[in-house]
Amino acid sequence: MKIDTLVVHADLFTMAGQGVGFIDDGAVAINGNKIVAVGASNELLKDYAADEVIDATGMMVLPGFVDCHMHTSLAIFRGLAQDTNAWMHKGIGPFVPFINEVSELAGSRMNILEALAAGTTTFCDYSSPILDIAAFFKKIGARARLTTSIKEVPPVKHKLKEHDLYPFDPAIGERTLSENLELVERWHGAEDNRITAMLGPQCPDQLSKELMLKVREIAKAKNLKLHMHVAQGDRETKQMLGRYQKRPIAFLDEIGYLDESLIAVHLTDATEEEARYVAKSGASMVVCSGSIGIIDGVVPPAVPFMEAGGTVGLGTDQAAGNNCNQIINEMKLTSLFNKIKYQDPEKLPAWKALRMATIEGARAVGIGDEVGSLESGKKADLIFIDLKAKTMLPVFKTPMRNHVPNLVYSARGHEICRVMVDGKTLYQDGKYLTVDEAEIIADCQMIANQISGSVSEENFAITTSATFMKEGKL
Amino acid sequence: MKIDTLVVHADLFTMAGQGVGFIDDGAVAINGNKIVAVGASNELLKDYAADEVIDATGMMVLPGFVDCHMHTSLAIFRGLAQDTNAWMHKGIGPFVPFINEVSELAGSRMNILEALAAGTTTFCDYSSPILDIAAFFKKIGARARLTTSIKEVPPVKHKLKEHDLYPFDPAIGERTLSENLELVERWHGAEDNRITAMLGPQCPDQLSKELMLKVREIAKAKNLKLHMHVAQGDRETKQMLGRYQKRPIAFLDEIGYLDESLIAVHLTDATEEEARYVAKSGASMVVCSGSIGIIDGVVPPAVPFMEAGGTVGLGTDQAAGNNCNQIINEMKLTSLFNKIKYQDPEKLPAWKALRMATIEGARAVGIGDEVGSLESGKKADLIFIDLKAKTMLPVFKTPMRNHVPNLVYSARGHEICRVMVDGKTLYQDGKYLTVDEAEIIADCQMIANQISGSVSEENFAITTSATFMKEGKL
Repeated sequence: MKIDTLVVHADLFTMAGQGVGFIDDGAVAINGNKIVAVGASNELLKDYAADEVIDATGMMVLPGFVDCHMHTSLAIFRGLAQDTNAWMHKGIGPFVPFINEVSELAGSRMNILEALAAGTTTFCDYSSPILDIAAFFKKIGARARLTTSIKEVPPVKHKLKEHDLYPFDPAIGERTLSENLELVERWHGAEDNRITAMLGPQCPDQLSKELMLKVREIAKAKNLKLHMHVAQGDRETKQMLGRYQKRPIAFLDEIGYLDESLIAVHLTDATEEEARYVAKSGASMVVCSGSIGIIDGVVPPAVPFMEAGGTVGLGTDQAAGNNCNQIINEMKLTSLFNKIKYQDPEKLPAWKALRMATIEGARAVGIGDEVGSLESGKKADLIFIDLKAKTMLPVFKTPMRNHVPNLVYSARGHEICRVMVDGKTLYQDGKYLTVDEAEIIADCQMIANQISGSVSEENFAITTSATFMKEGKL
Repeated sequence: MKIDTLVVHADLFTMAGQGVGFIDDGAVAINGNKIVAVGASNELLKDYAADEVIDATGMMVLPGFVDCHMHTSLAIFRGLAQDTNAWMHKGIGPFVPFINEVSELAGSRMNILEALAAGTTTFCDYSSPILDIAAFFKKIGARARLTTSIKEVPPVKHKLKEHDLYPFDPAIGERTLSENLELVERWHGAEDNRITAMLGPQCPDQLSKELMLKVREIAKAKNLKLHMHVAQGDRETKQMLGRYQKRPIAFLDEIGYLDESLIAVHLTDATEEEARYVAKSGASMVVCSGSIGIIDGVVPPAVPFMEAGGTVGLGTDQAAGNNCNQIINEMKLTSLFNKIKYQDPEKLPAWKALRMATIEGARAVGIGDEVGSLESGKKADLIFIDLKAKTMLPVFKTPMRNHVPNLVYSARGHEICRVMVDGKTLYQDGKYLTVDEAEIIADCQMIANQISGSVSEENFAITTSATFMKEGKL
């Protein structure tokens, strides 16, 4: 059979089945944007004649990573919100008044390049300006599953007293909902379903019960997922107790939010029991270990969620807090944080972390039938890892394979030598094939220089790191 | 004044003083293997005429990292000992009978390349065959501070019952001590003090009190540091309680080991009170966060050690457990693990982690007068970081600098574009200038293939990951 591309001689990790689905000297046959066969190289070489044969000798090939939750536009603030107990207020707070859609898009584009080169092929981006970001995803060729924030709280939160409930402004709710619906209208299913949309009620405390119910109705009618921050922290829990006398999970249960259409992000402040309850409802979880570790010092309950039968994907969240958007980093941190949390080095082994980064992540965001493993009929989203990179050396195949522990615990991203989405190579050997990297980098730095020049000492005075700067420590 | 090298126009972080010692548009004047001046570019350009002027525009320049504790030769087993509660027995155990000095050296050489490219300039290597490794350090040009293991326990430990005390064989003690002394004799102070040696009593439970006292006397007479694993875990504590009815720290105190000549590595099983006690004695600590996190699920007491006034450096330990030997990784994990341990995002900020990786680490291993900061009179060990790397973008200089948080929390190693030791560039833009990378990589893989072919199913049967392999999960 005549096809477009045949990848051969790979150390192939398909992620099919219950483990990592290893095939020695493996091959993947690709036609158009789909995988048409996966198997042994000698067999596929007999069965298929390809326009392009990619020799993956000395490479590990696996499905591209699924980043289940990210705010790419916040990357414009990378490195400004760490080591503080209030990253949003004290970290990026002083800078927020000086950004606009142009600077957000500049941060977003740079961040997408970063993540793509580190193996992310599916981006669940929860950002603005989402229509421009969608257009960038169309251009760069990556898979995107997009959301905008639906909320009703005016931007005055930090002026409230601690026990005040947030005010809700229904006009903001209507506007943000219609923005999300415009995203759905214009992009859901675009590029042969490479770009899709979800609805994004921000979190239980930032929009009214009425609006939450309305969003849920729309989601059911249009068969859309709800991508929502849930049990983010004590601030949210206090708001929910104050307004409804219920903790976030109990409230969501009451209003019918806990089912398979919900993607519950974070669960930072959820108890293990609450996590298990959400898991059993059919909702999925996204754990952003790096982000929540750095901004809250907390390890969210992903392990009990999985043990209760729930599906958990990984998210990098936002670079302003987390600093980086690289799924290898999230695999390692998720595994290590949980070993420490339970003081058990056997907790969350490398192969489980890799499943969370691929097939489980794809399932968590509702596209497990399309991506997350290399199987016939799925989309051809593949990444290639150079096994001559020193961080992957030496390679053992028998009696034990060390590819997966080395990928999860040793690799740092630069080992990825080719990234393919929908059968097209987007990145290879350090070069981006569909966009102009130098222009994107220069643009991002120029915008940062403009913001830098605008932020006054007065705005800056509230940050924790300002003290460090004055003391010569930063 | 005529000099060899002048580095100009850097975003310079000297690590002098109490913080990071930032100098905007900074310069470093180097003659021979020493720094002769540090200051503003315009001033140094007036004062010095250099054979080579290195334009560091768009680069962060800082002292090279000090890796205070590593076993480079174990890198031959990378990826074979994770996700198990007994990394030594169940992880590398089945492979150990099949290695020799040739394979250890092959692992060591590959590992040293890995760490050098990731910014390590000082290697406190605790390995064998140490004389060959020393010769490799001479060739590659990195700074090395070497140790071998002095111990008396024959290699039969896992056949003992749980409460049996290890047997001691004085002949092994004499042999291992004389090996360490041969290292001192042949290499201490070599290459204009670029290569130095320490004494390595393995840990309190693996040699007799008599030998420990003898080693201490030699250390005092020869003015050598004692590089020792201390309070490594419950196995060691049990041995010490069984043999001396004392916990490790109390025993070391009794025999006069707790003073400024001791480098206490790990302290995994030390209480916070014990850690403070060791700190006050003048001994230093090395924390190997990645290694102890992955193999024990524990965060050692580095924070109370520092709060008690002690000096703490970072170590990567061994790749068989930790998987990688990269100090950026250790900075990030040390900061994040402690934020989680204390559930406090302000704990161990990025600038403190960077000090541990440079000047505090240098002090911890007794060479703080020579390296660890960029100051006149110190050795010229510098690393250069490309600020156009996306993981470092965008760069903010005012009103807040984000270089250090981005280096600690976002960078992954490949941002390092030049590594200099003793004023000589050893690595630049992905190329090693003093050794043949391809030959070292090929040699390491060939040796691994030989080991792979030797390990039988029977030996392999004890590993945890063997189960994963059989289940198709690895």
